[in-house]
Amino acid sequence: MREYILLLAKDDSILIEKGKNKNKEYGDIDGNVEYGSIIETKGKKFVAVKPTFIDLLKKCKRAAQIVTPKDASQIISITGLSQGWHCLDAGSGSGFLAIFIASIVGRKGRVITYEKRKEFYEVAKHNIERCGLKNVVIKNEDVSKFRERNLDLITFDMKDSVKLIGKAAKHLKYGGWLVVYSPHIEQQLEARKEMEKHGMNVYATIETMQRRWKSLYGYTHPEPSGILHTGFMTFGRKALK
Amino acid sequence: MREYILLLAKDDSILIEKGKNKNKEYGDIDGNVEYGSIIETKGKKFVAVKPTFIDLLKKCKRAAQIVTPKDASQIISITGLSQGWHCLDAGSGSGFLAIFIASIVGRKGRVITYEKRKEFYEVAKHNIERCGLKNVVIKNEDVSKFRERNLDLITFDMKDSVKLIGKAAKHLKYGGWLVVYSPHIEQQLEARKEMEKHGMNVYATIETMQRRWKSLYGYTHPEPSGILHTGFMTFGRKALK
Amino acid sequence: MREYILLLAKDDSILIEKGKNKNKEYGDIDGNVEYGSIIETKGKKFVAVKPTFIDLLKKCKRAAQIVTPKDASQIISITGLSQGWHCLDAGSGSGFLAIFIASIVGRKGRVITYEKRKEFYEVAKHNIERCGLKNVVIKNEDVSKFRERNLDLITFDMKDSVKLIGKAAKHLKYGGWLVVYSPHIEQQLEARKEMEKHGMNVYATIETMQRRWKSLYGYTHPEPSGILHTGFMTFGRKALK
Amino acid sequence: MREYILLLAKDDSILIEKGKNKNKEYGDIDGNVEYGSIIETKGKKFVAVKPTFIDLLKKCKRAAQIVTPKDASQIISITGLSQGWHCLDAGSGSGFLAIFIASIVGRKGRVITYEKRKEFYEVAKHNIERCGLKNVVIKNEDVSKFRERNLDLITFDMKDSVKLIGKAAKHLKYGGWLVVYSPHIEQQLEARKEMEKHGMNVYATIETMQRRWKSLYGYTHPEPSGILHTGFMTFGRKALK
Repeated sequence: MREYILLLAKDDSILIEKGKNKNKEYGDIDGNVEYGSIIETKGKKFVAVKPTFIDLLKKCKRAAQIVTPKDASQIISITGLSQGWHCLDAGSGSGFLAIFIASIVGRKGRVITYEKRKEFYEVAKHNIERCGLKNVVIKNEDVSKFRERNLDLITFDMKDSVKLIGKAAKHLKYGGWLVVYSPHIEQQLEARKEMEKHGMNVYATIETMQRRWKSLYGYTHPEPSGILHTGFMTFGRKALK
Repeated sequence: MREYILLLAKDDSILIEKGKNKNKEYGDIDGNVEYGSIIETKGKKFVAVKPTFIDLLKKCKRAAQIVTPKDASQIISITGLSQGWHCLDAGSGSGFLAIFIASIVGRKGRVITYEKRKEFYEVAKHNIERCGLKNVVIKNEDVSKFRERNLDLITFDMKDSVKLIGKAAKHLKYGGWLVVYSPHIEQQLEARKEMEKHGMNVYATIETMQRRWKSLYGYTHPEPSGILHTGFMTFGRKALK
Repeated sequence: MREYILLLAKDDSILIEKGKNKNKEYGDIDGNVEYGSIIETKGKKFVAVKPTFIDLLKKCKRAAQIVTPKDASQIISITGLSQGWHCLDAGSGSGFLAIFIASIVGRKGRVITYEKRKEFYEVAKHNIERCGLKNVVIKNEDVSKFRERNLDLITFDMKDSVKLIGKAAKHLKYGGWLVVYSPHIEQQLEARKEMEKHGMNVYATIETMQRRWKSLYGYTHPEPSGILHTGFMTFGRKALK
Repeated sequence: MREYILLLAKDDSILIEKGKNKNKEYGDIDGNVEYGSIIETKGKKFVAVKPTFIDLLKKCKRAAQIVTPKDASQIISITGLSQGWHCLDAGSGSGFLAIFIASIVGRKGRVITYEKRKEFYEVAKHNIERCGLKNVVIKNEDVSKFRERNLDLITFDMKDSVKLIGKAAKHLKYGGWLVVYSPHIEQQLEARKEMEKHGMNVYATIETMQRRWKSLYGYTHPEPSGILHTGFMTFGRKALK
């Protein structure tokens, strides 16, 4: 498995592989260094640090619309996702959500992620490996036939997820969570109805907005333009019918 | 240590202690049950499940303004906080942020949280115990004399946090993160300046808004009123000066 | 017709009628004064000024959910509503939107507003009179039989407005605007479809959020809680089919 | 003065001058038509309508950052701006705010707008003429020496507006409004302090966000990216000191 190093300067950062690297801006960099070492290249000093999973995620390849970290992290804030959870995710897309969840559930946890489209499967597989995750299994299959049971969490980010809500309700453990993500409001409304129909406790439909503030020469303001909407998330929890 | 059980129905949930309970609405409940058991009380059926850390957090006592889960989870989405991190937190307030972080860093991680005001210290201590966390140390001391070093994360939610940014920069490991939380914009501006002065890479100042959507009888809309603002967070990362 | 005076102090304001007044807080006030006069009561000084239509609107009686000024003003920002426009409004509710529009279209303009529920009709009528508007006609009738033609603007804030979109399209002049207001997203989706079916140019569906910022002793922040959602507005314009 | 015609189709609109026109997309168009006439060009039918002031504003030249209609309209929703008001505006920039206000105050109202930079003055002058407004006077002068008195409204959208707040307070009539617009929060804080110092009633500092919703083939969602921030507005009202 490849190992990565983050080179961090006060005003820049580069993710490199352990070993020899060629960088467009900074030229040849020898990445055979320990964490905490100082590297100087083209007159600029960097310190070598261990990348976090977000550092790695940022450099991952994007093939499909991703679930952004701002939204992914709401799964934690609402469900309490933490170490040891057994999770199912579909469709993988570029694998971002699977990687995010796997980074939280750790070695005792597990994520099975399904992606039927070969080209997305390849990208997601590559990204999962790049992030060095050993607790993720990616399957190049249609999720509709999944057999995993007793799950703590199921996340759906795909077109026909509503059709699988009944099955999801069966395969979750009591108290387990289902999260339906989509950019469109209609799918959320259908998901709510379907969750209720299958005896789930519909906890909430949320949308999360984030603004970054800039400050330059004493002039402070939110960034003038950017992301106004990513997606809605509906959270349901398996209860008694 | 007390053990808790979440009783979950399709439209309600109750957190009870293992053992005998008196509930205002549902009367006497015998909580000596296994997870997955079904309990019937006053004609209502519940299933007993293991509470998540968010289930426990929701029932914690609030003595001071808390850092909400929606904001706390952005620490993960931006820094990549995960298992094994060593963290320092001040002031504890009601302990919510320390509990959130401790629930993510797990047994191999650690949170030291400082709270100088006795009354908040007591509440936070009680809440940390209630959540069953063994990786948190709470100190009834002024944080300004902290000696922990080589930290992965420092979180400040207190009035004079700006004065401690220089020290924080020294006590973080390279690549480690400092998060300054506050409801007011001025403190964020000062924090940015101070981070820059001490050679930190100022990653961002953010604010996160969340709306819940309601849907009843086919009428769907965001909740009409609620939280418009909790706080701003500025993220800096220890780099080379 | 009653005449109103706004008494304005640096930190307070009271709307009184011309003539004798009793005020809970400030006692007897003689409102027989010219604009610009200074009145002193219970040790507090006020200056008498002519109230604006927003000053009057704020003191109006509320019987139903109102269209707020923040939303009403978007009709101007999108349609270009100004003097001389002929407008139809339904249902009147408390009359706020009719008053807002009438205050902009002026003497050469006109607003016909329909309210079938007697109790709302009475409140709206009272409010319109209180604001001293002579260019508004309020009818205690079901709007479905309206006969006004060649209209510049039609505003609907009522349950079954979608059913009247075809008729609205006929009764608008070319280039005239239809605005459908409602708190729920479903009605907006139906309105869009219906507008398109009837040859209207669907300009936009919008939602407008506003935050007030507070600043006290150098601590500045958005108000922590308040209005998260009022309503959506869909704007269509009569074009050629 | 030039006269304009808006050609409106179900899915498009063109603003042309009365008389002969060349249009990139639609070729030669003879604009010597009455409102309500139907024009066919290159197989597309349009109806000729009188443009509203927003139709004209949209086609105006932009030389500087403008105050957007969504923000400009909040001046109405908060101050009650309407016919007959006497207003002062500085700096003109591209003239958008002056045009917006002049379109509301009508023939009996008046707007004096100051712009010291020659190149912006020329653009604003051109835009004001294009909109056919006769109640606007634009001066190519520094606003600091303005002598207009007894004003109903003063709007500042310029760097050093804070220095003029004392003077503004003198030149407003009692009950008159001062609006300070700027993208940065610092200027708002200074404006509040200065308004208070000069005996004004500080009504509010606001920010207004707007999202457009899209709906295509039954998939409805806010536009994914766009404007996150335009500016803040602080409203003060001349009261007794």
